[in-house]
Amino acid sequence: MGTITIKDVAKLCGVGVSTVSRAINDHPDINPETKQMIMKVIEENNYIPNNSARNLKRSDSKTIAVLVKGVDNPFFGKMIRVIEEEIRKKKYSMVVHHVEAQEGEVAAALELERQKKLCGMIFLGGFYSETSEDLAKVKVPVVLVTSAKPQLEANAGYSSVSVDDVKESYRMVDYLCELGHERIAILTATMYDESVGKLRLQGYKKALQKHNIEINENLIKYMKDSEDYSMKCGYILMKELLESKEEISSVFAISDSLAIGACRAIHEAGLGVPEDIAVAGFDGLDIGAYYTPTLTTIVQPVEEIAKEAAKILFHVIKKKTIHTHKFFEGELVVRESTNEKDSAH
Amino acid sequence: MGTITIKDVAKLCGVGVSTVSRAINDHPDINPETKQMIMKVIEENNYIPNNSARNLKRSDSKTIAVLVKGVDNPFFGKMIRVIEEEIRKKKYSMVVHHVEAQEGEVAAALELERQKKLCGMIFLGGFYSETSEDLAKVKVPVVLVTSAKPQLEANAGYSSVSVDDVKESYRMVDYLCELGHERIAILTATMYDESVGKLRLQGYKKALQKHNIEINENLIKYMKDSEDYSMKCGYILMKELLESKEEISSVFAISDSLAIGACRAIHEAGLGVPEDIAVAGFDGLDIGAYYTPTLTTIVQPVEEIAKEAAKILFHVIKKKTIHTHKFFEGELVVRESTNEKDSAH
Repeated sequence: MGTITIKDVAKLCGVGVSTVSRAINDHPDINPETKQMIMKVIEENNYIPNNSARNLKRSDSKTIAVLVKGVDNPFFGKMIRVIEEEIRKKKYSMVVHHVEAQEGEVAAALELERQKKLCGMIFLGGFYSETSEDLAKVKVPVVLVTSAKPQLEANAGYSSVSVDDVKESYRMVDYLCELGHERIAILTATMYDESVGKLRLQGYKKALQKHNIEINENLIKYMKDSEDYSMKCGYILMKELLESKEEISSVFAISDSLAIGACRAIHEAGLGVPEDIAVAGFDGLDIGAYYTPTLTTIVQPVEEIAKEAAKILFHVIKKKTIHTHKFFEGELVVRESTNEKDSAH
Repeated sequence: MGTITIKDVAKLCGVGVSTVSRAINDHPDINPETKQMIMKVIEENNYIPNNSARNLKRSDSKTIAVLVKGVDNPFFGKMIRVIEEEIRKKKYSMVVHHVEAQEGEVAAALELERQKKLCGMIFLGGFYSETSEDLAKVKVPVVLVTSAKPQLEANAGYSSVSVDDVKESYRMVDYLCELGHERIAILTATMYDESVGKLRLQGYKKALQKHNIEINENLIKYMKDSEDYSMKCGYILMKELLESKEEISSVFAISDSLAIGACRAIHEAGLGVPEDIAVAGFDGLDIGAYYTPTLTTIVQPVEEIAKEAAKILFHVIKKKTIHTHKFFEGELVVRESTNEKDSAH
């Protein structure tokens, strides 16, 4: 097959080289029909853009593995999407590997490392129980995303990107207290959680303490081992809470999915959100804006977090930097699911 | 490093070889603490199970690419999860590649094929405009999943797995008609769609015709080019429909995400679902069971579809079979969002 150049493509299409370039590079400033025509000509003539040609050397295929903890969490779905884009921009490819809730992330990572020629790994979520020493066994650079371990060591041998879970959770519960709520329940991770669950529970306790509200263990609902950050789990935990007859005026769920399940359980009990029980979530999933009632939540800057994770990973791979720990600010978004205590009564 | 066998691991753990095997193979019939202990020993001693050892030959790393059309669609999220499991079971690895709404799937596939040593590809969604001839340019075996092209040829050069979109859509709209609805709107894909959007619109028209209801173009809301199967899009289309002042008693949205956006728009207009407007979706997303009102929908058998797609792909790769087209039955699940016309009035 003869080699066709970008100039040939331009000639065949009757457009300038810069227009072909815009079409190839997904530049917004191009007529969609022109772009379609150019892409068709490119395909028909098997034209390979320069940057792709460079990747033809299959021997040095560069792969980044993304390890995701937990079953199809929509929060991670969006993040994987952004990370993939960043990885693709750098001409690396991405392997996604889901880690079962019960499976050890480090064991899974080591297995992956054995099987593939990896340049780096990004962990999404997880780290319920593994130690930094475990993690150090992974030889390629690692960035933990929203799976911050409680103790971050400057020389930890890995990087991390997340919001400050204690602070954001404190921000939400402080807000609920300011609304006049005192009987605030929390739907949280398992009792043994060493990751964001533990941190968000800390933030909850800290906010209650600030407002001189005694911590009531009956209002802390932990997931069981087999449960995850799902709507179903939120529904089950909330039902148990309602059946326990504990007086509650609001619920802080440590993920939006949990919060939505809780809203449904409250609705089925014949109660209203927020009139009877206010509900707040965490994450900032799209559904929070379309659920009825719309959901008060902490919006995590998903895009920024994902982009930064990829950026740090590539810096470490290229030895431009040592491992770093970066925190992003969350945003308290107040919607319909929370109101002032007794404001409706 | 010395080679440690499964027997050594069993001895170190004080358990039988079969227990170690159960731990490695994620067998449910094992005490979680025992399993954790075994996995720790395995990790500490760098024991490599046989099946992994076989994969150590990096040179013949076998990769399947999964091309996903559209931005983080939760329906595909679940599917990717299942496909990954199936691929992993066969000791292949999976590369996920998202295709932009405007990007051609075949162009993306050819590009991927150039860059990687692929054994096969699975397309999720898509095929808005590309032809079978375009698809034939892809050299590795291809399975299309829920992206059925209207004309399926026995010798098409690719396999496909999906529900029968015309039939399932007909089933839903027929159900709405049986409830007494006549002014049934549809929220559907773009006017030029050649994939599931076109098929589901066909099913809608067919059901109306059966019930002698004239097709009213004003009740057919097409996505714009820039839109996708998202809650936001459903919200926008429904708002336009409400503003058009067309009389509507029910809406069939061709995806659950669109349906949820529509419910929100109806709620914001001060109307109730289903009292004022009944809403039905398509897909069977988890959120449909936790939304208020819960959503009437066609549940697609996601797991079965995904497993079958992987099964067919491996059969074709191993030359055990030629390309096949397989349809699964959907299930009409009636929930709160639909009721008999005027039953509440």
